[in-house]
Order: sequence, then structure tokens, then C-alpha cells
Amino acid sequence: MVQHDDLFFMRRALELAVLGAGSVSPNPMVGAVIVCDGEIIGEGYHQQFGGPHAEVHAIASVEDEALLHHSTLYVTLEPCSHFGKTPPCSDLIVEKGIPRVVIGCRDPHVKVAGKGIAKLQAAGIRVTEGVLEAECIGCNEAFIKSHTTGLPFVCLKLAQTLDGKIATSLGASRWITGEESRSEVHRLRSIYDAVMVGEATVRADDAQLTVRNCSGRNPQRVVLDSQLRLPLESKIFGSEAPTIVVASTSFSASPKVAQLRERGVTVLFVDEHVGKLDLRQALVELHKRGILSVLVEGGSRLSAAFVREKLVDKILIFVAPKLFGGDALSAFAPLGVSMPDQAVDLRFGRPHFFGHDLLLEAYIAS
Amino acid sequence: MVQHDDLFFMRRALELAVLGAGSVSPNPMVGAVIVCDGEIIGEGYHQQFGGPHAEVHAIASVEDEALLHHSTLYVTLEPCSHFGKTPPCSDLIVEKGIPRVVIGCRDPHVKVAGKGIAKLQAAGIRVTEGVLEAECIGCNEAFIKSHTTGLPFVCLKLAQTLDGKIATSLGASRWITGEESRSEVHRLRSIYDAVMVGEATVRADDAQLTVRNCSGRNPQRVVLDSQLRLPLESKIFGSEAPTIVVASTSFSASPKVAQLRERGVTVLFVDEHVGKLDLRQALVELHKRGILSVLVEGGSRLSAAFVREKLVDKILIFVAPKLFGGDALSAFAPLGVSMPDQAVDLRFGRPHFFGHDLLLEAYIAS
Repeated sequence: MVQHDDLFFMRRALELAVLGAGSVSPNPMVGAVIVCDGEIIGEGYHQQFGGPHAEVHAIASVEDEALLHHSTLYVTLEPCSHFGKTPPCSDLIVEKGIPRVVIGCRDPHVKVAGKGIAKLQAAGIRVTEGVLEAECIGCNEAFIKSHTTGLPFVCLKLAQTLDGKIATSLGASRWITGEESRSEVHRLRSIYDAVMVGEATVRADDAQLTVRNCSGRNPQRVVLDSQLRLPLESKIFGSEAPTIVVASTSFSASPKVAQLRERGVTVLFVDEHVGKLDLRQALVELHKRGILSVLVEGGSRLSAAFVREKLVDKILIFVAPKLFGGDALSAFAPLGVSMPDQAVDLRFGRPHFFGHDLLLEAYIAS
Repeated sequence: MVQHDDLFFMRRALELAVLGAGSVSPNPMVGAVIVCDGEIIGEGYHQQFGGPHAEVHAIASVEDEALLHHSTLYVTLEPCSHFGKTPPCSDLIVEKGIPRVVIGCRDPHVKVAGKGIAKLQAAGIRVTEGVLEAECIGCNEAFIKSHTTGLPFVCLKLAQTLDGKIATSLGASRWITGEESRSEVHRLRSIYDAVMVGEATVRADDAQLTVRNCSGRNPQRVVLDSQLRLPLESKIFGSEAPTIVVASTSFSASPKVAQLRERGVTVLFVDEHVGKLDLRQALVELHKRGILSVLVEGGSRLSAAFVREKLVDKILIFVAPKLFGGDALSAFAPLGVSMPDQAVDLRFGRPHFFGHDLLLEAYIAS
């Protein structure tokens, strides 16, 4: 049963969980709080991939272990029940004699998926599930989607004017949004496993797609270059971060493949249909390589292709307080919508200001 | 000097002021609060055009008049100093012996404009100005703009998809936004003096442009119909609300003019340049007829024309969580922007949800 303060302490556990953003993938972000007599006596979060889980950190942070026998453990994600890189957390909880565990959401990982909860209950521990469930799922949306579907979580990032334009009638787009928005894009890159762009976007401004203006690791860089046209000297082939080129299978015999591989670039091949790379295949290949989340920073054609193929989970649009007018370039190429009821349906999240711009978050309605 | 609780009581006065929305134009909305020893002992607001002012209502609501000698009057707009439809409020305040008056913003009306404050100060009353000034000005943005420029306040209202489209590639637009947004449009109509549309918009769905789905008066309906092409049977010429047709001077001899006037329709003539009505002239004519605020509910060409002529003060865009794609109709016709630094600059207000839609408020940056 949900108790009076459960929401309060789970909110704190969520705050801790997101501190792991950008450091734990392909593991989930998890936060844990231990409460005795209404007071927090221990806290922890999953800090980096392969390192101790949140529960382990939280338990280790408690000074007087005897208090654990009268405590409640709050954890945003179901404790694991299997030996992975670390021993199972559910065993540790049982061993330490914690009598009550409150869980945000279940772990969809096939090796857990309810087994952690079952283990706790079998040991006589009272378990409360689903506290701040939506928030806890949201916090690990990439982890959960990728484990339930075998495809990475896909987020389209766009910067547009209020009237939906991403470049003027002359194709100019520097800059639409302000500095604060551009910094936030760098932060986003640092928490996604990969950033994806089309060849034309890379070529247009010799984009590097690394994380600058903020601390954080570089994501893997994925370039869709069906005909392997990008010059070897492109900055994106530099050694700052791993780069993956996705090309058409019909170019697998190209001498460029070996040249790219010599430079440490990974080259993947997927089918091409009517001149367009099979995006779903590309995502499956990326998922096989441990990429659970992809930030697509494409132009209007790549964005539209992802939407049409129903491969998008979330759209982040930085909207600048500007108008370009009807002859400017629309954010999305045609989507095959001829009547309003055929529109691509979204669901807005809470808007945020970044400087003078608004960041609108929209999920694809399912 | 601004005192500790001044903000608190001025906020209450503002809450009262907006209760007059839709009933007081062309007078301003004004709220007043009387505070004695930290307690509100009287409240009032300007309830309807020609009726008693906020200060009069507030003073009349005080049970023990003797307390006024130790009270502070908070009023969102400078008290008037002239005989209009009612005697000057500044005289009443002096007469009642109120020792301190806190004012949100000055009244730009030429007959007041600081004279009310001078009168109070001459009588030895302590006056504090500019408390919540921005909010108090915002509350009467139409009144203030029209009195300082001789033009009505112009707000463009649009309903678009997240990607900036107001109709599909086939021209279909019913419905883009949800019921809650459409109800809010009716509420907006009830607080603007006039609603303006182009002839094509009226013709497309025989629009009536009255206030439905909410209580409130109908605004005057203004149709731009340069060649007087709208059929006499159009619903907009019905008797539910006054209608004004703006036509080109070159059609002033048309037999349609007399037919429209017989039906109670006002017909105005303005110049036409290269087939386009002179919008500024039209606004000046409307202002002369006591219209201080205009809600423009046009299509992409009318919206763009207003923006290009720099006649817009505010844009209200209801954004539906939908995508139509690049072949759909853009919210604005071309605006003559070829490089990003030529964009029309706006400033966002706070976004609001109406059902699943977001209402984005943007002011033209000056």
C-alpha cells in the first residue's frame, strides 16, 4: 500500500537517478533512498556503467547498519535478481534485513522483469510498486523501449522558427535559436548513446557532432551516407569520438570501406529501397552494437523519413521567437497527410524556456 | 516608496481589474483595493463602460468611512482627473481623506497622463507609482496602445500544427486544434472590440464570427472585402452583431454599398495599392469608430500582410500536437526574409495548455 511519504522519497530517488545521465548506458539510471523513522539515512545512484547499483551505494552510505531492520528502501527501478557485472541487489536487500521496499517501475530486462520483486516477496519483504511510475519509466525511456522492442529509442531534435521553418528561402539557418538552446543540444548529445545525421548535413558545415560547451562524454556519431560520398578528410572522421557510417549494401565493395575502417570508422551496410536507406535496419544494427538511444539531428527529409517509417519516439523542437514566412524551408518534408485526421499525432510534454527560445517536447501518440 | 505588502495588494487589484474584460472598452480595465492596518476593507473594479470607476466602487464598499483616513488605496491605473462620464476619482480620493495611494501605471489618456497623480500630491497624499507596472500595463495593452498611437491594438490569432501548418496540402483545416482551444477563441472574441477576417475566409465556411460556447458580448465583425464580393446572404451580415465591411475606394459607387447599408452593415473605404487594401488606413478608420482592439483571424496572406506592414502587436498561436508535413499550407505567406537576421523578431510570453494544445503568446519585439 502506498504510504503518506512515499511520493516524497521516491521523488528524491528520481533526483538521484538522473545524476547518472550519460554515464550508465546501456544500463538504466537508478536512484535509491533509505528512510528510517521518516528520515533519510542513506542515498545512492547508479553512477557508471558496470559500477555498483544504486541500492548498493545507498546501503553502503548508511552509518548504522542496525537501522536497516526498521527502514524502507525507495528505488526507482525494480532491484535486479541476476548476476550481471555485479551480484543481485535483491539478495543484498534480503541479506541486510530491510523490511519494506518501494519501487517506481519494473525492470523490463528479460533477466529481471518481476523476478526481483518475487525474490523480495518470497523473503517476506513488503513491496509497494508503481510509485511515481510514469516518471520512473520516463527517466529510463530509452532503456525500457530498447529492451522491450529491440530498437533504440529515437529522438528527433529540431531548431525551428515559430512558423515551423528550419532555414530561410535561401537555405540559411545560422542561427535560428540562441546560445542557451545550442548549449542544451550539446548536453542532450552527452546523454544519448548516438547522434545521427545525414551525409548532406555533415557536408554542409563539416559538422563534428561532439559535445562542446558542457561537460559530458561524446556520443557515437552515426552518418547515413548511402553512397559513401563524404570525403575522408571530414571532421566527423576525426578521433574525438567513435563514428559509424551507414551505407547501402550495394556499396559494400567500394574501396572507401577499407579506407574508412583504417581510420577507425565502423561501416555498416543496410538495404536501400528506391534510393533510401532502410532506417529500421540501420536502427536494428545500432541496437546490436549496444546503442539504446539515438538523437537524430537531421534536416527536413531525414526527420520526415523517420516519422513516416514510424521509428520516432520523441521530438524535441527548440522554437525560436521568430518568423521566416511561407517561402522558407519547412521543418519536415511531406508526410503524406492530405486530411487533418491523417496528421501525425503527438502529445506535448511540459514546455521549457532556454533563453528566449521555447523547447517543446512531443511524444508520438500511440 | 514601495512598502512590504504593496505587491500583494496590487496583485489583488489586478485580479479585480480583469473581471471587467469585455465590458469596459473603450474604457480601461481597473481594479482597486483599500487596505487599513494590513487588512483589505474595500474592493472594487470598473464593471462596465460608462459606469462608476474602480475607486468609486472600492470606496463605497468600505463600511466604516472613518477608516479611510488611515488607509492606503491600491489602484492598477492612475486615478482620473477630469469630468468624463463620471466625476474625477482623484477629487473623490482627496475628499475622503485617504492619506496614501499606490498606483500600478500611469493613464496615457491625454486628459489624465500624470494630472491625476499631480492632483493627489498637491493635496498632500503620498503617492507610490509603478507597482507591478508591467502587469498593469499588460492588462490594458489595447487601451494604452490605442491612446498612445491612434491605432487599435492588433492581435493575430492562428491555429497551427507543431510544424507551422494551418491547412493540409488539400486545404483542409477542420479541425487542427481541439475543443478547449476553440472555446478559448470564443472567449478571446468576447474581450476584443472587433474581429477581422478576409473575404475568402468568410466565404469558405460562411463564418459568423460571433461568440459561442461561452458567455460574453459579440465583437464587431470586420470583413476586408475590397471588391464587395461577399453575397448579401452571408451569415456575417446577420443581425447578431454589428458588421463593418472595408472595401476599396474604387468600389464606393457600387450598388452593393446601399444594399449593405440597408441591412445595417457599415461600409468603409480605404485605398488599394497593387490590389491590396491599405491595412493601416483601415485600422485608423476603425480606431475613429472607437475600436481599440482587433483580433485578426485571417489566413496566411492576411496574417503575413499585417506582419509585413508592422501593424501587429501580439500573436496568439494555438499549436496542436500534430504534424502535417512540408506540402501543407504554412501559417504565414512569404515575409520577405532571406537571411536569418532579417527574421521577424518576437518575444514569447508564458505558454498555456488548452486541452492537448499549447497556446503560445508572442509579442512583436520592438
